[in-house]
Amino acid sequence: MTGVEGAQLEKATGRLEAFSDGVFAIAITLLVLEIKVPHPGGASGPTSAALWASVRSQWPSYFALATSFFSVLIMWVHHHTVFRLTRRVDTRLLFANGLLLLFVSVVPFPTAIVAEYLTTAAAPAACALYAGLFLGISIAFLLVMMAAFRESFLDAGAPRSTVRRLRISYRLGPPLYLIGVIAAPFSPWLAMGICTALWILWAVTTREC
Amino acid sequence: MTGVEGAQLEKATGRLEAFSDGVFAIAITLLVLEIKVPHPGGASGPTSAALWASVRSQWPSYFALATSFFSVLIMWVHHHTVFRLTRRVDTRLLFANGLLLLFVSVVPFPTAIVAEYLTTAAAPAACALYAGLFLGISIAFLLVMMAAFRESFLDAGAPRSTVRRLRISYRLGPPLYLIGVIAAPFSPWLAMGICTALWILWAVTTREC
Amino acid sequence: MTGVEGAQLEKATGRLEAFSDGVFAIAITLLVLEIKVPHPGGASGPTSAALWASVRSQWPSYFALATSFFSVLIMWVHHHTVFRLTRRVDTRLLFANGLLLLFVSVVPFPTAIVAEYLTTAAAPAACALYAGLFLGISIAFLLVMMAAFRESFLDAGAPRSTVRRLRISYRLGPPLYLIGVIAAPFSPWLAMGICTALWILWAVTTREC
Amino acid sequence: MTGVEGAQLEKATGRLEAFSDGVFAIAITLLVLEIKVPHPGGASGPTSAALWASVRSQWPSYFALATSFFSVLIMWVHHHTVFRLTRRVDTRLLFANGLLLLFVSVVPFPTAIVAEYLTTAAAPAACALYAGLFLGISIAFLLVMMAAFRESFLDAGAPRSTVRRLRISYRLGPPLYLIGVIAAPFSPWLAMGICTALWILWAVTTREC
Repeated sequence: MTGVEGAQLEKATGRLEAFSDGVFAIAITLLVLEIKVPHPGGASGPTSAALWASVRSQWPSYFALATSFFSVLIMWVHHHTVFRLTRRVDTRLLFANGLLLLFVSVVPFPTAIVAEYLTTAAAPAACALYAGLFLGISIAFLLVMMAAFRESFLDAGAPRSTVRRLRISYRLGPPLYLIGVIAAPFSPWLAMGICTALWILWAVTTREC
Repeated sequence: MTGVEGAQLEKATGRLEAFSDGVFAIAITLLVLEIKVPHPGGASGPTSAALWASVRSQWPSYFALATSFFSVLIMWVHHHTVFRLTRRVDTRLLFANGLLLLFVSVVPFPTAIVAEYLTTAAAPAACALYAGLFLGISIAFLLVMMAAFRESFLDAGAPRSTVRRLRISYRLGPPLYLIGVIAAPFSPWLAMGICTALWILWAVTTREC
Repeated sequence: MTGVEGAQLEKATGRLEAFSDGVFAIAITLLVLEIKVPHPGGASGPTSAALWASVRSQWPSYFALATSFFSVLIMWVHHHTVFRLTRRVDTRLLFANGLLLLFVSVVPFPTAIVAEYLTTAAAPAACALYAGLFLGISIAFLLVMMAAFRESFLDAGAPRSTVRRLRISYRLGPPLYLIGVIAAPFSPWLAMGICTALWILWAVTTREC
Repeated sequence: MTGVEGAQLEKATGRLEAFSDGVFAIAITLLVLEIKVPHPGGASGPTSAALWASVRSQWPSYFALATSFFSVLIMWVHHHTVFRLTRRVDTRLLFANGLLLLFVSVVPFPTAIVAEYLTTAAAPAACALYAGLFLGISIAFLLVMMAAFRESFLDAGAPRSTVRRLRISYRLGPPLYLIGVIAAPFSPWLAMGICTALWILWAVTTREC
């Protein structure tokens, strides 16, 4: 890469962030499409009580949506912090970020699977799949951080304490999500609990950021 | 939070606004997906008259879509005003805003329920659910305003009269939407009427803003 | 409106444009969701020839999608020009623009109806509905232009010739789309032809813009 | 075009890029909607093993999604580079870009067709359609480059080596995708292999960009 082209690539950060923001925002807003309008039946048509009962019985959908929404939202917040501290983009960062966006864009799929199967005998597979995707997301995010936090890419004024804190708190992601994947066959709820605990943990960690 | 990091967080307002704009814009544009193409039947295939009749009979969908569209659009306008007057973002504001975005992204779901059940015996439950989500949205918006309008967060040049007017007009939201939720079992139309009246009120209030 | 608040509103143009861009971009990208994957049957499963035949028979979907896509795209281009020439936003412009966005966000619905019914006996109703929505869009766009092109809102450097040309070329919209609505019962194809001719006309007009 | 209006058009690049980014981002995020939640049956309800088997049998969906995702993402990266080197927009560039956006917005449709038919007897038609759309995309991208890389449009500081490299590497697109279309009836996998090879090639080429 020549110096001139390197200088131009630096300007790219803004548009890459805007594009990533778009994918994050669309992915969390598409989650609602996975919640289906219930059709409680009965020969005499739906009653108010039947509709309430149907809506209440969809609670796995709401739980899955909220877990996915906040997991992706917190990741967006930190994605944002990472790129704020970085002043350059190269191909490696571009493709680590591309992999992250692929996984984030796919979140509505396992969310819908958990919503549909959380209360059935297929819950172990559904929750393993869910934790598995977030395992992939957390690994991709680590790759993004490793590409962004190289010495020559960090902004001169980037506080090293923030960089260190982000690195430490996100190192928790892959092993814990992996435990979730492994635990899902035995306890689907433990898998979902780990996913929930992690976004709350990262939310709380942000408080000190 | 150290002074250096606080200074950096201030730059975040722009990207937070852009992200929020994205969720608002996607949520209102996804509303159209809840309007299903009608399939008027008959052995000899659909006629023009049958299609017109089907399209006309979908009026609850159009009414629900328009109500949701303008309710969210007005909220976006004021969301915009709130962030224009604010020069900092911290975790509390970030998460109040996150809760607001979660509720806004979910709007297509109760909209579809009202569209489907407004003219059935299940209308009370459908309208209570609808007013209930907007109750949640209005509470989240109050939380955002409370987080944004702290003395140290307000822009030095922010006109106090605008801040006061926004605070007063949005305090109407939670109690009125709550009346809608409570009234829905007795009169679904009163609930929808309150939802409609509120966005018109806020639109008119904006005129003086 | 006080002078101070008026000055603040001027800053709003950027975010209003970004929000509008979002709705325009999402509306045209959602059009693809209305094209359904064909399921050619047969006892022995789909063959390549059957899939080709099914895909070919979906041509009304492609035609409707392309017409809607370019109609909205051209409108976005001119929306863009209008706001480039304007340096202020007030409530009237905000709500004229809101009405335009409502209609634009709804475009996938009549597009799907035309796609489904263009080759059936219900084509007159489908095409009248389609031309009717674009009639609404063209009226809303006129309202936006009337709100934006007030003397005190126009940018000092805005070339009057561009303003005049836009005003003249878009005055054609409402009467021609209205002819489309009226003609649809007699000739659905005339209605679609008018819709197609108009976006081509505006595209050509842009060339001189 | 007068000099004054030409000067104004130059400012348009930013908003055109933002709009294009929106369409690219939405198109790749909508891909997930084409992956349907599987419904493995059986009288006794779904088991975990049945769900795993169903999810695994959806691999053509994942393959098609990933191929489309990265093909569009790489094109976005280069679209980005092209507009970074360009300092003006005129009608020709606007409409070449519009054609590109139309094709990009349609990507979820052939992706869903390949996902559904890759392992059936209809694979030849499905893969020819898929390669055919990317043939259209690559031609539209060439038109964009031809419109953008005119001498009077290029930024003064645009490195000619980058312009040349982009031109050369994208000239490979149309003939290779055309080979894919022609090869699909004989070997659907060759067609998909060419599509995959091309995005990997462009990704690797980016490394030197």
